[in-house]
Amino acid sequence: MKRRLLLVSNSTLHGSGYLDHCQGNISHFFGRDVKRVLFVPYALHDRDAYTKTARDKFSSYEVDGIHEAPDPVAAVREAEGIFIGGGNTFRLLKSLYDNKVLTEIRKRVLEDGVPYMGSSAGTNVATVSINTTNDMPIVCPPCFSALSLVPFNINPHFLDPDPHSRHMGESREQRITQYHEEPDTPSVLGLREGSLLLVEGNKATLLGTTRARLFTRGKPTVDYDPGSDLSFLLTH
Amino acid sequence: MKRRLLLVSNSTLHGSGYLDHCQGNISHFFGRDVKRVLFVPYALHDRDAYTKTARDKFSSYEVDGIHEAPDPVAAVREAEGIFIGGGNTFRLLKSLYDNKVLTEIRKRVLEDGVPYMGSSAGTNVATVSINTTNDMPIVCPPCFSALSLVPFNINPHFLDPDPHSRHMGESREQRITQYHEEPDTPSVLGLREGSLLLVEGNKATLLGTTRARLFTRGKPTVDYDPGSDLSFLLTH
Repeated sequence: MKRRLLLVSNSTLHGSGYLDHCQGNISHFFGRDVKRVLFVPYALHDRDAYTKTARDKFSSYEVDGIHEAPDPVAAVREAEGIFIGGGNTFRLLKSLYDNKVLTEIRKRVLEDGVPYMGSSAGTNVATVSINTTNDMPIVCPPCFSALSLVPFNINPHFLDPDPHSRHMGESREQRITQYHEEPDTPSVLGLREGSLLLVEGNKATLLGTTRARLFTRGKPTVDYDPGSDLSFLLTH
Repeated sequence: MKRRLLLVSNSTLHGSGYLDHCQGNISHFFGRDVKRVLFVPYALHDRDAYTKTARDKFSSYEVDGIHEAPDPVAAVREAEGIFIGGGNTFRLLKSLYDNKVLTEIRKRVLEDGVPYMGSSAGTNVATVSINTTNDMPIVCPPCFSALSLVPFNINPHFLDPDPHSRHMGESREQRITQYHEEPDTPSVLGLREGSLLLVEGNKATLLGTTRARLFTRGKPTVDYDPGSDLSFLLTH
């Protein structure tokens, strides 16, 4: 399988600029063969402004906004690299369905080996479903099934409970546990801010500076350090 | 209109027991005419355990779990009072659809004046839609439209930003602002923990111990103190 994915937990790490914390990973990931990157700004309302942000950051590549293309499916068909940015995951997934690009993105990534980078919401939609997003459901997509570029789910911006909080909303861990009360639910990798997952074919490696927590239905959670080989997640 | 609603932000306030913080409001709301309360435990996985919790709390009423009834629609038709408990809002709304009880609950509350109490997720589903829930979308309901017992939305467990947080997920205010970027979206009342809204006919009053924040599309937000008359929200 030619699959190449860079799945980033968060676009911005506290105290640094947009995607600064994984700049080196991004350059290495797209490499020198990719000249143009197709940017998907569907997760934010102002697609032009968002594409400008991406252009400013990806200054060594030509960045095409998918919303600028007369035919978004054709734009995916011609893409050398794909980057789906963060924002609201429901809005993003609905727009992917509205523009009928899910099948083509999946085909390009899994069959043609086009490198796919996702950040936050863009990481959520790369997985089985958006059932483990943290976002507010501001719009309703036709269903929660996503690109399934990997056979598990991710919870980006994974957050440990704050022992000093007096807020009584469910912790992130409680929410994911509730997800696993439902039948046939896949494993969920909680990517803390600062974490990213690199997938190359059937090899998955945790990168970044923070640990990731794996939730598997009916089993205790396990934390993994940066550098861990998580390839076993790809065979489930 | 005979409508009587008690919409509670949160089931448990930090440092106290289940529904302790609004015990007086609940007794006053259901009063002496109601002998039996129909409890809807759909938001949690273990419906029997949840109904036991409600029974223990509502010891001066007979509590019937809707899931124990052979015909849930008939149970709604015969209810003297309805209480929908908190948990996961997506799971709750999906179960309301699966059991085909939305229309009957709406009819009983708006036409027959059956008192309706909701807590957290049970408050969310009393509004126009669950578009402004904080919960994880662990299951997919057919749509996000809810009971529309009031013509606006509520964000329960409303939370002010933590100025010391280093977490980069969107604040609650940013999320609701994103909701209002979408067309034709109703006002959203952010009920902080400790707040509850009492609706009697066309009169709405903020109760509890914390302020509520109103988000109206295209306008600045406004905070309201406990005791405020929010009846204007019912005429939009």
